[in-house]
Amino acid sequence: MKTERTTVNRLPERGRYDRETLYAILDEAPICTVAFVREGTPVAIPTIHARVDDQLYLHGSTASTMLSSLAAGAEACVTATILDGLVVARSVFHHSMNYRSAIVLGRARDVADDDEKRNAMRAVVEHVLAGRWAEARKPNRREIAATRIVAIPIAEASSKVRTGPPIDDEEDLALPIWAGVVPTRLTPSAPVPATKAIALPASVRNLV
Amino acid sequence: MKTERTTVNRLPERGRYDRETLYAILDEAPICTVAFVREGTPVAIPTIHARVDDQLYLHGSTASTMLSSLAAGAEACVTATILDGLVVARSVFHHSMNYRSAIVLGRARDVADDDEKRNAMRAVVEHVLAGRWAEARKPNRREIAATRIVAIPIAEASSKVRTGPPIDDEEDLALPIWAGVVPTRLTPSAPVPATKAIALPASVRNLV
Repeated sequence: MKTERTTVNRLPERGRYDRETLYAILDEAPICTVAFVREGTPVAIPTIHARVDDQLYLHGSTASTMLSSLAAGAEACVTATILDGLVVARSVFHHSMNYRSAIVLGRARDVADDDEKRNAMRAVVEHVLAGRWAEARKPNRREIAATRIVAIPIAEASSKVRTGPPIDDEEDLALPIWAGVVPTRLTPSAPVPATKAIALPASVRNLV
Repeated sequence: MKTERTTVNRLPERGRYDRETLYAILDEAPICTVAFVREGTPVAIPTIHARVDDQLYLHGSTASTMLSSLAAGAEACVTATILDGLVVARSVFHHSMNYRSAIVLGRARDVADDDEKRNAMRAVVEHVLAGRWAEARKPNRREIAATRIVAIPIAEASSKVRTGPPIDDEEDLALPIWAGVVPTRLTPSAPVPATKAIALPASVRNLV
């Protein structure tokens, strides 16, 4: 997965090149940002993704210009970032964040097969809310036809991870200034039902 | 701010083109993703940002290749996304997310003036943790020299916002399937001190 283009240049000690770390980040991050070049200009768009083995799926409407650009062969740079905490140092200079980020570079394949499309749609909904596929009304032929799915092979990729406390300069350690980490997490809160008299499903119960 | 390149094509009813919405998203999102083109390839990197009036500041080490590419004139596409909830529909097809995203396109100016650099460093730390500048040890000349700051004018930009409940097809409304929204929020938890016998500062107390 490590290539010259996916080697972490800045703070190389934070670079990770194993699939386990990469897959864990891609699977935990609810959304990613897809960057590509359109008429010489960089375009970056947030979207939902899902990973199945070494394939990264993106989905959307057949009217999506992002997906049609990728399907037409534009190279994609997909990043996913999970914020794990604010790193509060004694000096302004050493403030930082704890995070895990993943980057995947590649060209997408337009998925034409209905079974693979259905499996990708399942992976996307399960990625966001595990167990939801079994509960919801499945996609019909019209909906599958209206959905574009592209697959990016996870071949050229890397991760970057910062963990742990702030690292202040030696001469600042005795300053009477609090330092530490404030952990952060994307947290779900009480569901807001759009239906009456229907109990919370297992997928939502397990999440909250 | 609205140009052809920043007009929301897909689901245009979600597009917003006022500065109030855009600034609120940029100010609330703790991080952004900066996309640019390097040797024909899209590159997207998560980083911290801060807004001061109509300037979007990015900062990092003078060794950052991302910042040196931008300072050398590469066009940037900066996106920031806040996830507000999972939209759980009766049908798989209508599952969605509530979100607020901002996109800023532009070319950066390399900030050379020490006062503007110091102000930008202050804006960055205050953006992440309000009140921290007054508490921490301020940047010295060596640290300011080691920091590269670039400023992107917020001139070409847009926002995209989804709010509210799932929108299912009419014929699915009577299905015995729960639907609704699970709100999500990036939440701080109990601080982990790196110092002993120093009380939590106001900035961290106000956050958690």
